[in-house]
Amino acid sequence: MHILSLNYMELIGFGAAVLTTAAFLPQVYKTWKTKDVSSLSLPMLILFFIGIVLWLVYGFLKDSPSMIFANSITVLSSMLLLYFKIKYNK
Amino acid sequence: MHILSLNYMELIGFGAAVLTTAAFLPQVYKTWKTKDVSSLSLPMLILFFIGIVLWLVYGFLKDSPSMIFANSITVLSSMLLLYFKIKYNK
Repeated sequence: MHILSLNYMELIGFGAAVLTTAAFLPQVYKTWKTKDVSSLSLPMLILFFIGIVLWLVYGFLKDSPSMIFANSITVLSSMLLLYFKIKYNK
Repeated sequence: MHILSLNYMELIGFGAAVLTTAAFLPQVYKTWKTKDVSSLSLPMLILFFIGIVLWLVYGFLKDSPSMIFANSITVLSSMLLLYFKIKYNK
């Protein structure tokens, strides 16, 4: 898809996608570096992960490039946090 | 809108909305109770808030009840966190 064919709706969506996805990365990096998962709640991480998977499915059903892009990355971020929580939670 | 007129797409969307919105509330409650905002990053909160506002606009443009519902609540949650961060950040 050529950049000029993006309409203003998808520009707003991609802006949203970049901002909310980027806001998540420092948490993943911090948890990876410190291995401190004490303040992360396991039930919350599980609910959030399932929720993001559903948003991704919804993004495909709504035919929304912005939602597919954002939620593909956030699925990975929240899967990593879940993995760290289970691995480092002694 | 009658519940039976909801299609399966919006059921998936509402499932996603409830899960990701609910996952956010314990953080708001914890911050409100403890007044501890030391581990919250101000730039991250600002980026996230702007991102959610854009998702809300995008939800209206995409005519998505699930996105409008989820992001209306999350706009309030992230606005509260931002307010707590500014108020309690001594």
